[in-house]
Order: sequence, then structure tokens, then C-alpha cells
Amino acid sequence: MAVYTEVSDEALRAFLADYALGELLAFRGIAEGVENSNYALKTEAGDFILTLYEKRVDPAELPYFLGLMEHLAAGGMACPTPVHGRDGAALRALAGRPAAIVTFLPGVWPRRVRAEHCAPLGKALAEMHLAGVGFDMRRPNALGPKGWAPLLDGCRARGDEVQSGLIAELDAALAGILAAWPAEGALPAGQIHADLFPDNAFFLPGPDGQPRVSGVIDFYFACTDLFAYDIAVCLNAWCFEADYAFNVTRARAMLGAYRAIRPLSDAELQALPVLCRGAALRFLLTRLYDWTHTPEGALVTRKDPVEYLRKLRFFSGAETLSAFGL
Amino acid sequence: MAVYTEVSDEALRAFLADYALGELLAFRGIAEGVENSNYALKTEAGDFILTLYEKRVDPAELPYFLGLMEHLAAGGMACPTPVHGRDGAALRALAGRPAAIVTFLPGVWPRRVRAEHCAPLGKALAEMHLAGVGFDMRRPNALGPKGWAPLLDGCRARGDEVQSGLIAELDAALAGILAAWPAEGALPAGQIHADLFPDNAFFLPGPDGQPRVSGVIDFYFACTDLFAYDIAVCLNAWCFEADYAFNVTRARAMLGAYRAIRPLSDAELQALPVLCRGAALRFLLTRLYDWTHTPEGALVTRKDPVEYLRKLRFFSGAETLSAFGL
Repeated sequence: MAVYTEVSDEALRAFLADYALGELLAFRGIAEGVENSNYALKTEAGDFILTLYEKRVDPAELPYFLGLMEHLAAGGMACPTPVHGRDGAALRALAGRPAAIVTFLPGVWPRRVRAEHCAPLGKALAEMHLAGVGFDMRRPNALGPKGWAPLLDGCRARGDEVQSGLIAELDAALAGILAAWPAEGALPAGQIHADLFPDNAFFLPGPDGQPRVSGVIDFYFACTDLFAYDIAVCLNAWCFEADYAFNVTRARAMLGAYRAIRPLSDAELQALPVLCRGAALRFLLTRLYDWTHTPEGALVTRKDPVEYLRKLRFFSGAETLSAFGL
Repeated sequence: MAVYTEVSDEALRAFLADYALGELLAFRGIAEGVENSNYALKTEAGDFILTLYEKRVDPAELPYFLGLMEHLAAGGMACPTPVHGRDGAALRALAGRPAAIVTFLPGVWPRRVRAEHCAPLGKALAEMHLAGVGFDMRRPNALGPKGWAPLLDGCRARGDEVQSGLIAELDAALAGILAAWPAEGALPAGQIHADLFPDNAFFLPGPDGQPRVSGVIDFYFACTDLFAYDIAVCLNAWCFEADYAFNVTRARAMLGAYRAIRPLSDAELQALPVLCRGAALRFLLTRLYDWTHTPEGALVTRKDPVEYLRKLRFFSGAETLSAFGL
């Protein structure tokens, strides 16, 4: 479900009158995305995405997200570009919600990741990190290390219902991760995506028939944090098989392509194992929180937290870089 | 939720190779629709809809549905036209499901129906009825009068949980409707849509700024039944306010525009009240069945059966045509 707010056609037409996009031609809800209401919008000017920001998004943070997308697009990244209204504003209101129109990106997200996706993904990630340099707004990572203890506390009452002994295991894992986490300022930081899962990366075949990234979307978890943590998120999201076996070929392809664009320092490389454990814990905790707090019958897909427990355990045993194919 | 089956990009590309649609440019799940998996597909040839038929659809009936759409489109109806593969077949297989590509239709479905939508809707309905003449396949209405007693029996065990006394009220209503139902052959019949709700009708403004029907979609309840029953479905679906008050202005507009294209016989007019009660009962029963059989927590929107109980009660008190503005 990714349409939470319905928009009447009169309200939509009034909203579009504030843009120079010509006449409305079509307007369909999009199934993908879980945080906001997304519509495919077609006007005489072409294809766009209209997003209504729902309650999980803090309106005060929208200028960061929209500004970052605009900065990255201006720097050559294939990411959604906010469309400005006639008065210059990109962030507007529709149906009682903050709303924005962004450009439509071609491409298809990989329902089944293959090693061939991982090099272009690593390249796009590095290009995004470089393109974000010069964007001066900062957004702390609300779901970074400082957020994990409160999240875990929020799961304490019912977490063991998912798996016996889970909370004790996560307490120990969190303590170990925080103890080994890079000190403030020790690693290069900047604007990161922080949620670059396969459904947020579009691909099209290049002239050689191999996949190329045609677009990166959904910057609504983006924040200012360690570049190498963004890599760790991608290693979690892209490099496991369906049976949770870590695929070293994919990791090597992703890291190699990344490093060809933005070399990794020794400190970043040495930190990768703990960053991967942290990223696994981050997705485990938000899924566990949703799992234990979503009422039965709610129209929200509850993602299985156990997937990230398996990944956390893998990375907990992967102390050296050889586990990553390096 | 309207994506039940995920399609890998390799499978999609292999599938598209059987069509002359050029390269794949984009592929996004569509939120609307509840029976099947629907994707917005963009190729070098333009915009299309790819549908994977899920378990509620009997594959043996797909040639009727696709054939009807093709016949109606050939007759000038703005409805999805099945796209044929290079071998001539429109009905194919993808990801283990029957699948078809149909043309994309412009327009926006009205989230809030206004009287201005009802005349063009009535006109399009009449044009569809005429355009279906000459399509020789027949599909009995599985959700017609003969299907209602078994549906009601299926709700008997838990129906009164929705509202006390409901099953007894529906037993009496069904008996009354069946006693008054037009005899076989008494009214003109042909191909009907049978589910023409607002989300199945797209509109765009005409040169005068007034809404015009730009497309009718979702023919997967279409069948061979009384034309006037299709009108009764639309009176149920389009002519009630949010508080379940019947809006005579909308009904008059719909019926007037319909009759300007396809005149209604006296027998059809006299039958409208019982047909409207039957149509209300039909949607009440399928919603009640889903309500009492959908497990809590399932990812399916359960539509409120009480809405159609209110409509059934309205039509039960509307014995004469003056209630319809005639």
C-alpha cells in the first residue's frame, strides 16, 4: 500500500494550476513505497511523481530532502528533481499534506539482484557521495547509533515473541557495536542515502547489454553521516542470497566499482565490519519495532525482522575484510 | 495492494521479447485494483498496463474478457485494447501466471463523484452496451441472481457479527428480489461491465471544460446479462452521497444521457427498482463474504458491507420511478 491519502480531481487540478506543466493527462496510485502516498502523474509536459508526505515524515525535514535531490541532480546524479511551481516553491500542500512533484526516472528496479547489478550500484553510490559535497544542509541520522538503544528499549516488552532470547542477543550486539564504532570525525562523512535498497535503484541496459543505474530514488532517509556506513547499508541490502548466504562476488563488485570512483581510506576499510553489523542492527530494530507495534489487521506490510538477525549474525562472524572479498 | 506477484527483470525482458514494443523503459506496480497484479509498463512504443491474473480469475474466462475489450475498442469504446505478441497471441504467461499487456488510457478517476460525471458516465455505458452487440461469446453472470443464495449461505455463520439481525433481513430481501426479478428473456441483454465503479472510469475535461469519459477499465466482472442491470449497478455506485443519501440529480443525469444513446423500454424502466435492489444486494453479499472470510491481518482492504445495506434499504423503499428522478 502506498496510497494513504486520496486526492480529489478538483484539488489536483487546482494544485497543478500552480505549475507550468500543462494539462493533466493521467494520475494513478503507485504500489511501491511504504512511507508516503505516491502517484504517477502524466501531464502535457511529461511524466512525474507526485508525493504526499504522510505522518512519518517531519515536514521540517522536507527542505533538506528536496534540496539534496536538487543538488545531486544538478551535479549529474540520476535522481528525482523537484519541480518548482510558478512561484518558485517546490514544497507545497495538497489534501492537507505537504506535497511535491519530482521528475520521473526511467528504469526498472531488480526484483532479483544479480552480481551484474552490484558494480553499477557501487559506482552510483560513490558518485552520489561525491555529488553531495557542497550541499551545506545537515541532517543527523535519526536511525544512527544514538537512536539504536531507544529503539531497542521500545522493542523490549514484546521482542522475544519474535524469537526467544532475541532481546538479550541484541543487547550484547549493540554494546559490541557501540564499543567498536568509529569515533566522531574519524571517517569521512557527508550526505548519504542510508536506505539504498534494490527497490530504490532503477536500472536499464547499457550499450553493452549490461545493467546501468538509470535512477536512484527515495531520499527520505538521507542524512549526513559516514560515507562508509552507506556502503555497509548496501552490503546488507544487495549482497545476500535468498537463503541469507553472503555473496562475496557481489560485495567485491560493489566495493571495487565504488573505490574506482571514491577511494576508501584504510580507516574506512577497517571499519567496514562494524559498520555492517550496525547497518544490520538498524534495519533489524526498525523492523522489530514495527513488528511489535503494528496492530494486527493494519494495512501495512510488516517486514520480517529475522532476515536482519541472520545478517547481523553473519557480520558478527566476519571480523576481517576477507569476508568481503577484499 | 495490487501487486501480488513480483516479476524479475530477466523474466520481464524475456516476456517483452515476444512483443514488438521496443525496449523496456520503466515498470512500476500500480496501487489500484484488488483482484490482479497490475504494472505500469513503459517501452519505446509508449505506455501500457501489464496485468498478471491472480487466483480469483479463472484462466478459462480470460479469452472472453480480452476478446470483449478488443471488440469494444474496435467499436470505438475508449477501453484497454489487448496488445498481441509477435505470434498473434494476446494472452500469455509470466511468472507462472496468465498475463496480458493492454493499452494505457489517459484520464483520472473521480475520487469524489459530482453530478457532472454522471451524464458522461451514462453516455459511455450506453455506448458500451451498443458496442458489445456482435460480440458472440457469452459469459453467465456468476454474481447474478442465481449466485446470491449460495453467497448468502456462505455468510450465514458470521454475518450477524457485522450487524444483529442482518442475515434475517437479507433472507427476506433476497426472497423479495427473486420474486420480482424479470423473467428470462423479458428484458434486453448483452455484454455488460457489471462493475463500473468510479475507480473504473477515467475522465478528462472536454473543450467546454466539463468532464468527459476518457476510458473505462477493468472488465474482469463483465458478463452477458441485462443491460438495465448494468445501469442499476451504476446507480448504486455513482448516485449516493457520502452519507448514503441518494442524489436524484446524478441519477437523472445518468439515465437521461444513457437514454439519449440507447432508449429504455417501459419494461426496463419498470424493472429498475428491483434491479437496483439486486445490485445493492450483490455488492453487499460479496463484501459481507469477504468481511466474514478474510483473516485478520490479511493485506486486503475489506470494504464495509454496511454501505450496501444502507443502499439496499433505500432501494427497498423506492418502489416508483419518481425516486430516480423520472
